[in-house]
Amino acid sequence: MPELAPLPDLIVEPIVRAALAEDLGRAGDITTSAVVAADAYFSGGIVARRDGTIAGTQAALIVLNLVDPTVSVSVQAPDGTSVSAGDTILHIEGPARAVLTAERTALNMMCHLSGVATVTAELVAAVGNNKARITCTRKTTPNLRTLEKHAVRAGGGVSHRFGLDDGILIKDNHVALAGGIRPAIQRAKANIGHMVKIEVEVDTLHQLDEALSEGIDAVLLDNMDPDMLRRAVQTIEGRAISEASGRITADQVPAVAASGVDIISAGWITHSAPALDLGLDFGVTI
Amino acid sequence: MPELAPLPDLIVEPIVRAALAEDLGRAGDITTSAVVAADAYFSGGIVARRDGTIAGTQAALIVLNLVDPTVSVSVQAPDGTSVSAGDTILHIEGPARAVLTAERTALNMMCHLSGVATVTAELVAAVGNNKARITCTRKTTPNLRTLEKHAVRAGGGVSHRFGLDDGILIKDNHVALAGGIRPAIQRAKANIGHMVKIEVEVDTLHQLDEALSEGIDAVLLDNMDPDMLRRAVQTIEGRAISEASGRITADQVPAVAASGVDIISAGWITHSAPALDLGLDFGVTI
Amino acid sequence: MPELAPLPDLIVEPIVRAALAEDLGRAGDITTSAVVAADAYFSGGIVARRDGTIAGTQAALIVLNLVDPTVSVSVQAPDGTSVSAGDTILHIEGPARAVLTAERTALNMMCHLSGVATVTAELVAAVGNNKARITCTRKTTPNLRTLEKHAVRAGGGVSHRFGLDDGILIKDNHVALAGGIRPAIQRAKANIGHMVKIEVEVDTLHQLDEALSEGIDAVLLDNMDPDMLRRAVQTIEGRAISEASGRITADQVPAVAASGVDIISAGWITHSAPALDLGLDFGVTI
Amino acid sequence: MPELAPLPDLIVEPIVRAALAEDLGRAGDITTSAVVAADAYFSGGIVARRDGTIAGTQAALIVLNLVDPTVSVSVQAPDGTSVSAGDTILHIEGPARAVLTAERTALNMMCHLSGVATVTAELVAAVGNNKARITCTRKTTPNLRTLEKHAVRAGGGVSHRFGLDDGILIKDNHVALAGGIRPAIQRAKANIGHMVKIEVEVDTLHQLDEALSEGIDAVLLDNMDPDMLRRAVQTIEGRAISEASGRITADQVPAVAASGVDIISAGWITHSAPALDLGLDFGVTI
Amino acid sequence: MPELAPLPDLIVEPIVRAALAEDLGRAGDITTSAVVAADAYFSGGIVARRDGTIAGTQAALIVLNLVDPTVSVSVQAPDGTSVSAGDTILHIEGPARAVLTAERTALNMMCHLSGVATVTAELVAAVGNNKARITCTRKTTPNLRTLEKHAVRAGGGVSHRFGLDDGILIKDNHVALAGGIRPAIQRAKANIGHMVKIEVEVDTLHQLDEALSEGIDAVLLDNMDPDMLRRAVQTIEGRAISEASGRITADQVPAVAASGVDIISAGWITHSAPALDLGLDFGVTI
Amino acid sequence: MPELAPLPDLIVEPIVRAALAEDLGRAGDITTSAVVAADAYFSGGIVARRDGTIAGTQAALIVLNLVDPTVSVSVQAPDGTSVSAGDTILHIEGPARAVLTAERTALNMMCHLSGVATVTAELVAAVGNNKARITCTRKTTPNLRTLEKHAVRAGGGVSHRFGLDDGILIKDNHVALAGGIRPAIQRAKANIGHMVKIEVEVDTLHQLDEALSEGIDAVLLDNMDPDMLRRAVQTIEGRAISEASGRITADQVPAVAASGVDIISAGWITHSAPALDLGLDFGVTI
Repeated sequence: MPELAPLPDLIVEPIVRAALAEDLGRAGDITTSAVVAADAYFSGGIVARRDGTIAGTQAALIVLNLVDPTVSVSVQAPDGTSVSAGDTILHIEGPARAVLTAERTALNMMCHLSGVATVTAELVAAVGNNKARITCTRKTTPNLRTLEKHAVRAGGGVSHRFGLDDGILIKDNHVALAGGIRPAIQRAKANIGHMVKIEVEVDTLHQLDEALSEGIDAVLLDNMDPDMLRRAVQTIEGRAISEASGRITADQVPAVAASGVDIISAGWITHSAPALDLGLDFGVTI
Repeated sequence: MPELAPLPDLIVEPIVRAALAEDLGRAGDITTSAVVAADAYFSGGIVARRDGTIAGTQAALIVLNLVDPTVSVSVQAPDGTSVSAGDTILHIEGPARAVLTAERTALNMMCHLSGVATVTAELVAAVGNNKARITCTRKTTPNLRTLEKHAVRAGGGVSHRFGLDDGILIKDNHVALAGGIRPAIQRAKANIGHMVKIEVEVDTLHQLDEALSEGIDAVLLDNMDPDMLRRAVQTIEGRAISEASGRITADQVPAVAASGVDIISAGWITHSAPALDLGLDFGVTI
Repeated sequence: MPELAPLPDLIVEPIVRAALAEDLGRAGDITTSAVVAADAYFSGGIVARRDGTIAGTQAALIVLNLVDPTVSVSVQAPDGTSVSAGDTILHIEGPARAVLTAERTALNMMCHLSGVATVTAELVAAVGNNKARITCTRKTTPNLRTLEKHAVRAGGGVSHRFGLDDGILIKDNHVALAGGIRPAIQRAKANIGHMVKIEVEVDTLHQLDEALSEGIDAVLLDNMDPDMLRRAVQTIEGRAISEASGRITADQVPAVAASGVDIISAGWITHSAPALDLGLDFGVTI
Repeated sequence: MPELAPLPDLIVEPIVRAALAEDLGRAGDITTSAVVAADAYFSGGIVARRDGTIAGTQAALIVLNLVDPTVSVSVQAPDGTSVSAGDTILHIEGPARAVLTAERTALNMMCHLSGVATVTAELVAAVGNNKARITCTRKTTPNLRTLEKHAVRAGGGVSHRFGLDDGILIKDNHVALAGGIRPAIQRAKANIGHMVKIEVEVDTLHQLDEALSEGIDAVLLDNMDPDMLRRAVQTIEGRAISEASGRITADQVPAVAASGVDIISAGWITHSAPALDLGLDFGVTI
Repeated sequence: MPELAPLPDLIVEPIVRAALAEDLGRAGDITTSAVVAADAYFSGGIVARRDGTIAGTQAALIVLNLVDPTVSVSVQAPDGTSVSAGDTILHIEGPARAVLTAERTALNMMCHLSGVATVTAELVAAVGNNKARITCTRKTTPNLRTLEKHAVRAGGGVSHRFGLDDGILIKDNHVALAGGIRPAIQRAKANIGHMVKIEVEVDTLHQLDEALSEGIDAVLLDNMDPDMLRRAVQTIEGRAISEASGRITADQVPAVAASGVDIISAGWITHSAPALDLGLDFGVTI
Repeated sequence: MPELAPLPDLIVEPIVRAALAEDLGRAGDITTSAVVAADAYFSGGIVARRDGTIAGTQAALIVLNLVDPTVSVSVQAPDGTSVSAGDTILHIEGPARAVLTAERTALNMMCHLSGVATVTAELVAAVGNNKARITCTRKTTPNLRTLEKHAVRAGGGVSHRFGLDDGILIKDNHVALAGGIRPAIQRAKANIGHMVKIEVEVDTLHQLDEALSEGIDAVLLDNMDPDMLRRAVQTIEGRAISEASGRITADQVPAVAASGVDIISAGWITHSAPALDLGLDFGVTI
């Protein structure tokens, strides 16, 4: 995997700030303010309680910095790292009040995003030596799409469209309303700039032929079994990128990948990935 | 379950608006704008593809209204309803462009929140005739806490604290930094108003005794097995509300509930609930 | 009074930023920009012109920092301090332009919040050796509730509910619409989580009996004279927290407190406290 | 008083929305949602409990509309109206839940702003047949300046500068830093456009001469007694607008106004006006 | 030109709202409020004072609606229409105060965007029968990119990338820092999803060969004269989309288009288009 | 020209942040992240490619700081400086990724604002020895008014009203709706505070007489030729400030200025100024 550049803080910070504000409410951390002395000191870190792949360290760093810029953090396991239960991900030193106040928001971010990265990495591993790349969809958690797509990349996957505006994806409903694949593609081409790709969802090889004859960038092969996928790939003959889609689980990935498709997309890696279990421990050493 | 009042639109609308903006990006739905005629009409609805419990209809209504106020929606299965695969949840009529543009954001909201409601309802069912109530925690998806807690209520659960500011929850780290359970509780009482409850996490019956002797509202019985929970409940003798916590699965709920605890809390019902599979279909009839 | 922890800057900063933007308008401080040289230097401070209790120093620090982070401020009289006319509260050194531009917004914050703290401290003093605590209500200045409740704490008071969502307070109108105190309390209990307290407003001892028989956390004894309050406290017998309410002035506090109530609440300490007179002076020494 | 045009809703709505959100918190009005039936109906209104002058009806209308657009409100006493205890200000009909949820925010707005209007009207009345107009200053409640200045107009006053950017006001500190009144005025004139007025604060008749000789639009006569004000007005001879300032109370207004000044400004009418007592009553008739 | 779908109001409204707020300031339209009676009525419209192509009607409609939803507007010349001096674009009826308050913001939007559409249409006309399409760049007015790109489409052009995130465009500086065209393209391909296109800027035919040999979607032919463009198009042989760029004026378009390039891009149509002169007139008839 | 104080960062930063976010979109600078190494270093600057007058350096500094606070910038040509093609305006050192990501937003700001400053400076030069000052209008680019008015000042001009709320400008439509110049002025005077100026648009000398007889601060002499302007100035005799307006080009300024008017206003210097051509170059030396 190539080096994974962080997202701009300008994009991540408002999301993190809102999440922290959601937890602080109107009065802040009333337990910690009352119970913990202002000069109590924390030395410890965020530690994995299960094996997995890490994402969300940037968000956690911003949470801690927003609560108290004097907290110092060193990243032991950057986004994309595979960790084992017990590994330290972030080593943290600073005022105990700040760390306890930031704890839950930082963990909520990291556990969720590491969960996404972890299931993505499992699918990537299942591809084996086939060429297929794992990609997510627009079935993301509301208001976390950018972070989840970054987590998919941390897990070794790649991104699909970021939204409705940065790619044409003609689905079955569009085809029905346009009166066929051919007019749908023609209308799309008449409206878009030269930097926008066109992908068309097809359910049959007949539809595939019609789409390819118009000239498109990619085809979404929806809910096809591995045999039909193989025949579709043969039909395409490199004239378009092939994407297999439709509730594909880790168990099914090897057969799907063996069909020769370029892309395997899965919505569940963003909308149904279980959180990776991470926790904040006192006194961890690096 | 008592009637579930909707959240104020003032709270839900900004979250929904941000989610829709995230999908529309800078140029809006370029596929639908190009491919679907302005006067195409949609009649259909959002339909369950699996059995489950519904939440998130308010968010979906707001999404559709934000895209086009002329879309008309009738709610067939309000929040808290159990549905079977094939049931219609929302019946929708209106301009096809608007419905297709709103589809993904509305479904992302409803699938996620119905997933939360569904697993909550499973835990509630597992409680059986015991008195325990199911509650969520602050381990929620960032920026969706209010909606997820409402979904928990749709599933028959109740809410815990909404954040750091509306309840005192003294955890193990607080106790350690305060120098004991007793000083922690005393400091909390000296700082808070008369409408704030105090809950203390205890790991042993000895700690439990210490907490009860100071007078508290609730105890969090962390990671205790059913036998120990039963002994804790006997020790408490109604002097505080008892909450069992610690990765409790649906399989474990019956035994935990049988211990006599008042509350069973579970973080995973918000952070790791798989999305409930819902879809948008043309031509559904009510 | 226990140590008063500051509010999170994350909460205070947006309020302060908006207030400063309100004063800067579209073109900033055109007088100072035109009239005062860029290298003019200010050494002086914010000084009390009347006796009182201080609140709002955090807001003032943020104002000055937002205008120019090179301004240096040392807090001579932190929130909660009693000051006499002439005392220096903040000592300030830095570019004169920045200090003059920040002056009015910083003073507007501090004078208002110190006004709240000052009248609160007067009520607290009037309680004398009685156990009653002074609390504010939701009758706060729009968009300043968090800061005003913090100012009440600076004056030695405690906070009531922060809003409609963090406590149940069943008032006369709720009782009327619910068909009685009993059904109102029962409905409340069926809907809320275990961390939410229930308080009920009662106007008569008969209503008080009805409320206590259902089991509640607190009673609001509305507009009762000291004799009736005393009888109410005797009736309660420790089964609930007692709160006296209803336009209670400093003169009335001793008699009210002597009735034995736990809480005396007053809306006017937030909505009608006169500002404490503070000013910015050149050349003050510490 | 000329007809008072309302402020643009675009300006008022965000302030009101924020105030309502502050009260709703994360979960909304949990008492009303639990206790009051969804179909309960409210007919009544907001009623004066003391005599005074009304302001803030626009804000109250927006609060009610934001909570539930089906609530219908008729304004019985528009901004600027003098009311007596018992008079109905707004007649309200609609869902009881919505009205109870909106009540406190609407009242907090109206009580505060009517308080400002009421003390302003008292000062205006004290001016009697003299020509002086009452004006407020920039000593306003943070983030409520626009609404408070409108309330001053409702009380018969006029507005001063709205902020640091829409008028030049050279104060004592500016003069000191500029090296005198003359250079301060000259620098101001060199920097500003032709639509900006210049006012200068003077403490002595000597300073007044110096300011007038440079040509200015207005002079702020700071902390002068009525005799000195009279001499200042004679000195000015119509060459500038005269403004008397400095903790002027209602008792002092007649003498100050009799001095012949054009403007009497008072900061306390915005920062220290006690709230006017208004309440929500069931069943009021118009 | 295919039908031009409007942008989502959700995208346009916040931009328009901010622009209106910028003009209203803190006190609104004080001239109109003072001078024009509340019941004065306006009937008239926005009229062209020069020939041109219209864009921005959606923004103008939103401005008027935000000021007063009772203003009624009928669009006589939708976006993309060519108008002559004297033509009515919007016919407007409603309260005169609202129309005068909205006038400048609505005109500022429409004049600017119609200016962009007008120069775009001139370039499109200059292309004649050649296949080249006119496109804009990221050299747009800050915070108006979405509206300006829509205006380009109104003028018959198409859009380029919307930002840094929806297409790869490898420029000279990227090539220099990557150590050549080849490694730059390879790194790009390793990092991106299948829906992202890659364009490379080339200055010479040698660079063009290198880029084509790696396989790319488009080439930016920077600052080449028509002869060199023709040779580049011949070299490309349909293997990539060709884009001519570099300060191309309307006079130069025919020769550039005749070279056979697919795309002619021009930054000045967004950053330097003079506003189209439009005005608000009383009493216009349709 | 007196020293030009910068605008408060509090005002400029949100505009710049939004512009940067507009360019970064959801995924940031995907080209630079993929192609340029994290440790690549940039040394160079922003350089003029044409002669002109500079504005917008503050915005550019904020852009670079927002992308990466470790980038160091030294300003070689502050706002208001005349530069020749080839001159360096900002010298920049820092991580190459950050500089390339910030490049376009910084240039879009500086090129636009320097374009405004440049045409303003041309008009100022054309005034010659006459006393007239050049001013802009409210015909500004939406959401950039504050920055454009600052750019006008950088070019040697002065500002007119900032919006609808900080000055009375009675235009022809107001006069028509008020029933004449006289009642319009009288209504204005009855409504406003003492710090607001009144300007009236007049088209004829008869209207001018009527306006002057009521006493006003300024007159807008609309679309008058130099001869008529001269007669208007003679009529005014210093009783009001005179402003000439109406599509005045640089060629016409000398004759207009010679008429003796105080102010020449031009909308086109903000809405139709062509961008000044600036670029980012590697390796520039100071």
